Amino acid sequence: MNRVRVPAPLAERVTLRGAEAHHLRDVLRLKVGAEVEAFDGLGNVAAGTVAGVDRDGVLLELAPARPSEAEPTRQVAVAVALLKGDKLADVVRQCTELGAAAFVLLVTRHADVTALSPAKLQRLARVAEEASRQCGRARVPSVTGPVAIDELAWEGRAVVADPRAGRPAAAVLGESAAAASAPSPLTLISGPEGGLAPAEVAALLERGAVAANLGPLILRAETAPVALTAVALLGASPGARGGAPAALGEGR
Amino acid sequence: MNRVRVPAPLAERVTLRGAEAHHLRDVLRLKVGAEVEAFDGLGNVAAGTVAGVDRDGVLLELAPARPSEAEPTRQVAVAVALLKGDKLADVVRQCTELGAAAFVLLVTRHADVTALSPAKLQRLARVAEEASRQCGRARVPSVTGPVAIDELAWEGRAVVADPRAGRPAAAVLGESAAAASAPSPLTLISGPEGGLAPAEVAALLERGAVAANLGPLILRAETAPVALTAVALLGASPGARGGAPAALGEGR
Repeated sequence: MNRVRVPAPLAERVTLRGAEAHHLRDVLRLKVGAEVEAFDGLGNVAAGTVAGVDRDGVLLELAPARPSEAEPTRQVAVAVALLKGDKLADVVRQCTELGAAAFVLLVTRHADVTALSPAKLQRLARVAEEASRQCGRARVPSVTGPVAIDELAWEGRAVVADPRAGRPAAAVLGESAAAASAPSPLTLISGPEGGLAPAEVAALLERGAVAANLGPLILRAETAPVALTAVALLGASPGARGGAPAALGEGR
Repeated sequence: MNRVRVPAPLAERVTLRGAEAHHLRDVLRLKVGAEVEAFDGLGNVAAGTVAGVDRDGVLLELAPARPSEAEPTRQVAVAVALLKGDKLADVVRQCTELGAAAFVLLVTRHADVTALSPAKLQRLARVAEEASRQCGRARVPSVTGPVAIDELAWEGRAVVADPRAGRPAAAVLGESAAAASAPSPLTLISGPEGGLAPAEVAALLERGAVAANLGPLILRAETAPVALTAVALLGASPGARGGAPAALGEGR
């Protein structure tokens, strides 16, 4: 099924112009009558049909919009340090597929990279949009920052990956999944190639974040956020604990 | 700490030649007295000191070898379909960091790639070795294959990633973690860009594998094995289920 992003709110008839029209008309070569799935980037989808194609744009007719059932119920923001080369694109791509709701880029003490051009930020937003289209997301994760790690704000819980932490990520994230029947928002924080400074971790803990280790092996800076996101969204759900433990959690 | 692979068994005095000697002498520029950590690729480590450097090689003096404490207790083999481009290198690199014990490459029905040259297989083995060195592994995962998926052999349990499966990976892998106090070997199977054919999945299930889904979003073929490995090794340990459920599991 061809998926197309349509500006919110999803209306009954929508004319696409510019890049989206070009994609449908000239790349996918869709004709009148072709079926598409429209998504608004905010979590809603609508079945649609191409009702007109010309040089100026592509006309879609859409069925009533509905919230996507593919979006995770838990809101997970990935707060990741600026990384060298194209590593952030890999992080954004993989974590978008895993269901991350937002990315916040961090300036940290030991980072080799301390700034991000507007063009690179835009490119990361495009990576998030393209990954969303391909993996069936209805919500396109936002990509914002960079912000100094000491100024990172979060709602709900924050978990920071720290090799020195005593508790494993699975325990910290599983506990969080068990504690709330409607899971609270979660922010996952990970550092640059050189790691977070102990003082940076300490400052986060003082502000209420919880530290978690990802095992005794040293994950690269671009693997850690992917592993954390996988554990948070696929690995530590109530289902991860089997029938009986999930029932215990629900009984609270 | 500089890590160096030394052929097993780790002896008291070892002379390295060739590529390893070149790396220590000419790249890292280690001098007599420099400290290293030696690993044998089979799970053992030894603290060491450079005792001699010349054109022919590098002499190391090693303390008694001991099994690494950083290696996962669970043996996880990643059986992944041949993928296009350099995607398998990414899979091998990330899953090595996460603690995979072995890689088996699969020939599958819907794959665009149906063969792997000996040179490419060697390159993947080098990627596994280099990732092992960097992430602190003592065991270097083997990379073997390609084998036809119908001829894949496994010990212990096998879990195949299948979007059509009714049960989530976390439940399937968590159950497996809870059932055994000494976790049995696990093989994680994932398909190519075009997915596994229903008949391929059915044949695996007939042979005792269990199917698991990775959520409603469509993971790329290079993300699925990484997510599965993260959930298996970091996310579905007894610890993932919090204190009470872990205690239930231990009580059996």
